[in-house]
Amino acid sequence: MSILAVGTVAFDRIETPFGRRDRALGGSAMYITMAARYFTPHPRIVAVVGGDFPVAYRDVLEGSGIDLSGLEINREGRTFAWGGRYHYDLNNRDTLYTDLNVLASFSPVLPESYTRSRVVCLGNLDPSVQLRVLDQVESPGFVLCDTMNYWIESTPDRLRDVLRRIDCLTINDSEARELSGEPNLVRAARLIRDMGPDIVVVKKGEHGALMFTEDEVFAVPAYPLEDIQDPTGAGDAFMGGFAGYLDAANSFGSSDLKNALVYGSAIASYCVESFGPERLQELSMTDIETRIGAFRDLTTIPVSQFEAKAW
Amino acid sequence: MSILAVGTVAFDRIETPFGRRDRALGGSAMYITMAARYFTPHPRIVAVVGGDFPVAYRDVLEGSGIDLSGLEINREGRTFAWGGRYHYDLNNRDTLYTDLNVLASFSPVLPESYTRSRVVCLGNLDPSVQLRVLDQVESPGFVLCDTMNYWIESTPDRLRDVLRRIDCLTINDSEARELSGEPNLVRAARLIRDMGPDIVVVKKGEHGALMFTEDEVFAVPAYPLEDIQDPTGAGDAFMGGFAGYLDAANSFGSSDLKNALVYGSAIASYCVESFGPERLQELSMTDIETRIGAFRDLTTIPVSQFEAKAW
Repeated sequence: MSILAVGTVAFDRIETPFGRRDRALGGSAMYITMAARYFTPHPRIVAVVGGDFPVAYRDVLEGSGIDLSGLEINREGRTFAWGGRYHYDLNNRDTLYTDLNVLASFSPVLPESYTRSRVVCLGNLDPSVQLRVLDQVESPGFVLCDTMNYWIESTPDRLRDVLRRIDCLTINDSEARELSGEPNLVRAARLIRDMGPDIVVVKKGEHGALMFTEDEVFAVPAYPLEDIQDPTGAGDAFMGGFAGYLDAANSFGSSDLKNALVYGSAIASYCVESFGPERLQELSMTDIETRIGAFRDLTTIPVSQFEAKAW
Repeated sequence: MSILAVGTVAFDRIETPFGRRDRALGGSAMYITMAARYFTPHPRIVAVVGGDFPVAYRDVLEGSGIDLSGLEINREGRTFAWGGRYHYDLNNRDTLYTDLNVLASFSPVLPESYTRSRVVCLGNLDPSVQLRVLDQVESPGFVLCDTMNYWIESTPDRLRDVLRRIDCLTINDSEARELSGEPNLVRAARLIRDMGPDIVVVKKGEHGALMFTEDEVFAVPAYPLEDIQDPTGAGDAFMGGFAGYLDAANSFGSSDLKNALVYGSAIASYCVESFGPERLQELSMTDIETRIGAFRDLTTIPVSQFEAKAW
């Protein structure tokens, strides 16, 4: 078994205070699978590219062990392209352009080999496309979904249909507030859980993430980095690490979910150290375990003087 | 030994979406000592009030075990008064008024009994007043300081004089960026440490806090609360819990500092559950230890599948 990720494969134009890239390999499905592959073999990609998608990029993906049998090539069209410019503090960005191209008519048909996938990642896409993919997978073990303000505002009913059928929603804090209409994140997560997903992961960028389940809240900070080159794809890499960990564990209990959150955060922290997926192409499991150790050091509360004395 | 806190004692007008209070007991020195008293007996207060300061408020402080021998009463003047209105999300507020009153001419003279204090809290005040207090304490064991954008902008040189003489600065994230001129918080903390303090605690409100020392970073989330009534004083209560823990531990090593951060965060999380210092008046050590346990549940990373298998 493995994981399946539907989303975008894109040409990204990225401008940050530390450099720029044009026509870089991008897209949510790319980041999800490039992160998940560290935990689970041959992540399956469901996406579309145009006739202009270079062999070199296919080679990067195949060389990284990504299963491309679900990557549709629309030879008459051009690959989805996105451009963004980050502000000096990297916490905000302006979208320069979004050219849907082949994505506008994307209606995925899964290869037979994909229809039994244990973990399904519905990357940030039109909820109708997310549903279409979900309809083609036979009783998946765990379904994750990402979304954004655009779908919350433009297709709220279809998004609600998706939410009823997933196990876990990953969502930015501002979007969690928008989706729930509630400024308090604890209440917002409860309201979103009432819409369907048992698990809500609120992503807070440089402030880390919070995971809400029926009876627990778990917090993980962002790894404090001095040199962030490019935040693009961090949320998707997080989802890929989270989902990949769960697929490898083949278990979805409290400890597994907490570890999935930390492993996802570790992969995301590496992702932002270089432009695009550059850093995700070269990590070792030793790198990842080293950062997991750093997360433990960052968060482990020692026994206190009062507890030691049983005051 | 005990801790000494210089700061304000005030009349606060507080408006939040959940209610309002007028002429509530407020001020940084009040919040610091009301929090610290859970850990260390008879915190010492250095502050000034006017002739209008009611006996009932003195009784609250004395009844809570605060040492008021350093509370100056300026009988001709009126007590410092502040009013603030919080927005619906509680993360932003408008200042309605700031009437310095007796604070404008405050020039503290410490009682003899205060001049030997182990832990000194320089609450958010004019750096000149902070220095004046520090000059009167004989070789304190640990000095903490809080500040704000107003002093960063209006008295930068005096603030630098303070920074050279303290062990720990507690500061909001936006103010850490302003003081250092650096948007990345890891770099900002390093630049501030170069200004003097060995330890920098960056307070991030609903996102918790980060503590930077020479060779460690430690993160604590904010406790996820569904019902926040009033954020006023949370930062000061945090400082009081942090300092009180250190004074009780009488030790300033890595484990002590980490626990101080968590105990401070626990006290702050209680503070915001009611208006003004109402909740800080009624806690038990059992309440506090219960929340420390909740912080451990919130942050403890279980052994992962990979670590368990030594993959």
